[in-house]
Amino acid sequence: MHKNWQKLIKSLHQKKYRQEEQLFLVEGAKSVAELLQYTQQFEVKAVFYTPEFYESYQTLLAAQDQTKVILQQTTATLLEASGTLQSNDGALAIVKIPNNLVANFANGYVLALSDIRDPGNLGTIIRIADWYGISQLLCSATTVDWYNPKVIIASMGSFLRVKPYYCDLVTYLQEIRQQTNLPIYGTTLEGENLHQTQFESQGIVVIGNESNGIAVDILPLLTHQITIPRFGKAESLNAGIATGIVCDNLARALKNI
Amino acid sequence: MHKNWQKLIKSLHQKKYRQEEQLFLVEGAKSVAELLQYTQQFEVKAVFYTPEFYESYQTLLAAQDQTKVILQQTTATLLEASGTLQSNDGALAIVKIPNNLVANFANGYVLALSDIRDPGNLGTIIRIADWYGISQLLCSATTVDWYNPKVIIASMGSFLRVKPYYCDLVTYLQEIRQQTNLPIYGTTLEGENLHQTQFESQGIVVIGNESNGIAVDILPLLTHQITIPRFGKAESLNAGIATGIVCDNLARALKNI
Repeated sequence: MHKNWQKLIKSLHQKKYRQEEQLFLVEGAKSVAELLQYTQQFEVKAVFYTPEFYESYQTLLAAQDQTKVILQQTTATLLEASGTLQSNDGALAIVKIPNNLVANFANGYVLALSDIRDPGNLGTIIRIADWYGISQLLCSATTVDWYNPKVIIASMGSFLRVKPYYCDLVTYLQEIRQQTNLPIYGTTLEGENLHQTQFESQGIVVIGNESNGIAVDILPLLTHQITIPRFGKAESLNAGIATGIVCDNLARALKNI
Repeated sequence: MHKNWQKLIKSLHQKKYRQEEQLFLVEGAKSVAELLQYTQQFEVKAVFYTPEFYESYQTLLAAQDQTKVILQQTTATLLEASGTLQSNDGALAIVKIPNNLVANFANGYVLALSDIRDPGNLGTIIRIADWYGISQLLCSATTVDWYNPKVIIASMGSFLRVKPYYCDLVTYLQEIRQQTNLPIYGTTLEGENLHQTQFESQGIVVIGNESNGIAVDILPLLTHQITIPRFGKAESLNAGIATGIVCDNLARALKNI
């Protein structure tokens, strides 16, 4: 692997360089293999892989258009030295960041993230959305960068199917309130019992920040406050866990989100 | 803070020394403050805290029996140097590990952990159990150590109310099968739809390992396989998320676990 690639890869751990280059990293054999099946939607620039990865996925590699993507075998040691994963198990890809999309409610529900800061939590939430067939997440501008390598790793390939829409969430939700009848649900500690909530067929669910919950300027924009019923004594649930439980209740209510 | 305390605290990051000394660490102002309200159940040996912690919790500190617990003001720098948290915000306690309890089904349901390896996941599961009023977790011998400082931190104080019972889970569940009629539920990818499961009023729910699910020697001991219904394409859910969703469905079915 040429030194310039290593330098580029290292720089892509920082948001500043991801934005300058409009590139992000996909790490780990399983995620890279899955990515290579989504080359219609994602522009893959380069893939670096170990001989073991080649062994397992040579058909997939052979199917790539080599006028567009650079395929290069390297060593586990070099991969590990340039990756985020402690053990970068077999492959790493450099991918173009897709253009920011427009919000799209055709599929029923979207989640809106009010200032999710932890990359692991964002990745987990992307994975939950993918499990429940939610294809878009509205992210407040203060939400951690979607293309942070730790987010991509934690999403376990679900970033390939779930799309981000970063925006000023307050302004956006204000417009929704003014221009549509879409319900805006949000999890708080004093809302209606989630087990009794009658979800409408389309809408937005706002997920709050890990420590502070939903931002104070977003709270008045909710049309429904909902609460996960508690039977014991823990003060709160982790943001990812709460998202999973809300999506499961939503899916149960709608049968298919 | 005397050097010997620092040495002891550092050693307690390792399981070997926790077992030798039968002591564990509780870190962070909020967890330590909560711990000091549970001194009937936990034998606190020493508490180190910053002047800021003293400001906020002097009444709580004054209520402690100083013939039993050493209370010592120190600096944030010294706390940070000896703690697990990157920013050890205000307090750290050294606590005696309680005796391993007997399993107790009086409260309806227990969770059984089949080889949960990640400390953050175990802490999150303890917090979920506490939210849903489940007071005991059976842990396979291969499950990460309950008293690992990262588990205690992630449990956000819930370790004070939820108790572990480490055992050879295979042998234990075999005995349950032979001697009782208790149902043993487990999450797999080919079970009954969780949204339709008729939970009995008492039982065990087995939670599988992060990568491999429920151990192959435990699978045949399940009386019911249950599956979280999927509406999208993610291959699986994180172990903590799955636990949260299962507990929420259990709570809904039983109203109170």
